[in-house]
Amino acid sequence: MGTVTLWSDAKAEADPRVKAVFDDIRATRKSAFINNFWRALANQPVLLERTWSGLKAVMMVPGPLDPLTRELIYIAVSTANGCSYCVHSHSAAARAKGMTDEQHADLMAVIAMAAQTNALATALQVPVDPEFLV
Amino acid sequence: MGTVTLWSDAKAEADPRVKAVFDDIRATRKSAFINNFWRALANQPVLLERTWSGLKAVMMVPGPLDPLTRELIYIAVSTANGCSYCVHSHSAAARAKGMTDEQHADLMAVIAMAAQTNALATALQVPVDPEFLV
Amino acid sequence: MGTVTLWSDAKAEADPRVKAVFDDIRATRKSAFINNFWRALANQPVLLERTWSGLKAVMMVPGPLDPLTRELIYIAVSTANGCSYCVHSHSAAARAKGMTDEQHADLMAVIAMAAQTNALATALQVPVDPEFLV
Amino acid sequence: MGTVTLWSDAKAEADPRVKAVFDDIRATRKSAFINNFWRALANQPVLLERTWSGLKAVMMVPGPLDPLTRELIYIAVSTANGCSYCVHSHSAAARAKGMTDEQHADLMAVIAMAAQTNALATALQVPVDPEFLV
Amino acid sequence: MGTVTLWSDAKAEADPRVKAVFDDIRATRKSAFINNFWRALANQPVLLERTWSGLKAVMMVPGPLDPLTRELIYIAVSTANGCSYCVHSHSAAARAKGMTDEQHADLMAVIAMAAQTNALATALQVPVDPEFLV
Amino acid sequence: MGTVTLWSDAKAEADPRVKAVFDDIRATRKSAFINNFWRALANQPVLLERTWSGLKAVMMVPGPLDPLTRELIYIAVSTANGCSYCVHSHSAAARAKGMTDEQHADLMAVIAMAAQTNALATALQVPVDPEFLV
Repeated sequence: MGTVTLWSDAKAEADPRVKAVFDDIRATRKSAFINNFWRALANQPVLLERTWSGLKAVMMVPGPLDPLTRELIYIAVSTANGCSYCVHSHSAAARAKGMTDEQHADLMAVIAMAAQTNALATALQVPVDPEFLV
Repeated sequence: MGTVTLWSDAKAEADPRVKAVFDDIRATRKSAFINNFWRALANQPVLLERTWSGLKAVMMVPGPLDPLTRELIYIAVSTANGCSYCVHSHSAAARAKGMTDEQHADLMAVIAMAAQTNALATALQVPVDPEFLV
Repeated sequence: MGTVTLWSDAKAEADPRVKAVFDDIRATRKSAFINNFWRALANQPVLLERTWSGLKAVMMVPGPLDPLTRELIYIAVSTANGCSYCVHSHSAAARAKGMTDEQHADLMAVIAMAAQTNALATALQVPVDPEFLV
Repeated sequence: MGTVTLWSDAKAEADPRVKAVFDDIRATRKSAFINNFWRALANQPVLLERTWSGLKAVMMVPGPLDPLTRELIYIAVSTANGCSYCVHSHSAAARAKGMTDEQHADLMAVIAMAAQTNALATALQVPVDPEFLV
Repeated sequence: MGTVTLWSDAKAEADPRVKAVFDDIRATRKSAFINNFWRALANQPVLLERTWSGLKAVMMVPGPLDPLTRELIYIAVSTANGCSYCVHSHSAAARAKGMTDEQHADLMAVIAMAAQTNALATALQVPVDPEFLV
Repeated sequence: MGTVTLWSDAKAEADPRVKAVFDDIRATRKSAFINNFWRALANQPVLLERTWSGLKAVMMVPGPLDPLTRELIYIAVSTANGCSYCVHSHSAAARAKGMTDEQHADLMAVIAMAAQTNALATALQVPVDPEFLV
């Protein structure tokens, strides 16, 4: 699997831009673990920097939605987009942020319900009610 | 728009199964408004009953996720599935359940971030880290 | 709507390749009606020829699946792909080929069920059973 | 693979709700085999019950569409949704219900044709013909 | 249509962050026209700033791919994602950057071909050849 | 993996239609290698012939877009459709046609940007500007 090579720590050490991002990932997460997504993106240092700084700005700053809710939304999008890697990584992230089995079960039920009514609304081509327009 | 006709209240009154569901929608929501999704599904009374009872069981019972969080997840799935009707109806539902503009902005940011990293993980075909496996 | 112009009959008459396809659509379908899909594709005569000849070879020749079953499959794919135009045109085509309201209701139920279990299998990342491998 | 554990028969025996569903799956299908989808869903007994009862109500009752046609539609949706597990499991189910190689080939041709014209209609943003509206 | 209001120029003038982005869009594009995407995003100034700066960094700097090629790729992604707004806006952008009718026709042919073989590879669940792995 | 068997060279030699396509693939590509996509499609000789002749007509004839640009578009569509096999095979094809690491990085950035703004335009249901209509 993979259309690019995954960067080892040794290789990352030798590229200042990649090293800086890897260092920041480790410092921000307080963990030595760098997952494969970043090791793949390291082939494209500018995109690596932009993606990591975007993720930090969206997912790791205080805001109106709490960190776990954001992860649940992330899992929902990743499921609908069929991204196997992302479903795995964000399910792990949600558990790390305290998602219980009961919350996971509730999430599954909502995702399944939405997929079902999405399909029906599209198959029936239901016109939008004027009441829903802003 | 539409691959089926939308049932008027008069038509629904004449079919006991459809009338029962419409009555329950109004009683449950404490509102006379029946949106087009149900008026389209009325052409298929068995599916109408099953879909409405499923939606009640998933979205309208107390559980580990609160009602607004469930609506945010619903919007996320509907967006990724490209269901225009569902994005409109559940954005309206989320606002009715108290979603603030700030929460909506946060939701947009998470959906956009997820779409972006979903695409990258798929384009790079990143292998799942063993650490993420259950 | 539209990223290209729709060709009128007058414009089509003036281009021999487009005229030949339009004539064949009318002869094959025994109807003067040319729907907008072909009027849009007319901007790209080579693609128009290839698409029409492909559609004829797949949908309009006798084979193990009957014409109505093929249309039901077409609606299912178009729904999952979120193609509004295609859902409309193939729902109309299915009705023209004899689809009853009961068959349409059954189709809706299967599409909704599949969408639901697709989402669950993806969200749970269920591993394929060895029994299913060829 | 997997964001949840798969329930063994021993674990299922110890949970009355899961045991009841597993027993019903075996009785309905007249087979001891329980595929991984249900073993994953067992983590969420309420969702397991709802999903299995929905599947029985849609796929296993007599209706206007025969069982094989429903499986072909299921494969079509699963393909368009990119659900690898579902494509595998429902292709196996279709074969078990009598799908011939010729029917499978015909299905592949229709799915491919629909994917192609879906893309073209979306890329050209073809407006829906008034003739297609109900 | 729309789940948020579109900001007028008058409203944008009154919010320094939105005004700054709108001014930069006009200066960068050398045009007074601000399209609806930005007027909708203005409800979320932080996301507006991040999205515009991201778009500038990706689409408007010199790089190994020329501006028109990038627009063709953008249309391809938008089509596969079923984003009607994006197909319209980037088809217009591609024409503004010199896309000829012949190039558009070629793009349509490639998109249609890819959609077709994507569907077949998924429906057949073709295993990746070892020769393709990096 | 796989819902059909992959045809060996020996099996292909025994079927004149499959042999003819395999011979043409080898002659056209000047390589003995036949990738799994064609070995899977060989189960459906008519579809094999049609798909290969379509691919040749679209991807291997001179035209307004050069061969590498076409491969980049193919990767973009395959990514958005979540086709793992296709992302792998066309990333390899693009490299074989000269794609540099810098071009690949640029492609990734455009795909990620498009996925992000697609999601936002859909979540906000932005109405199409009249200026974009043809």
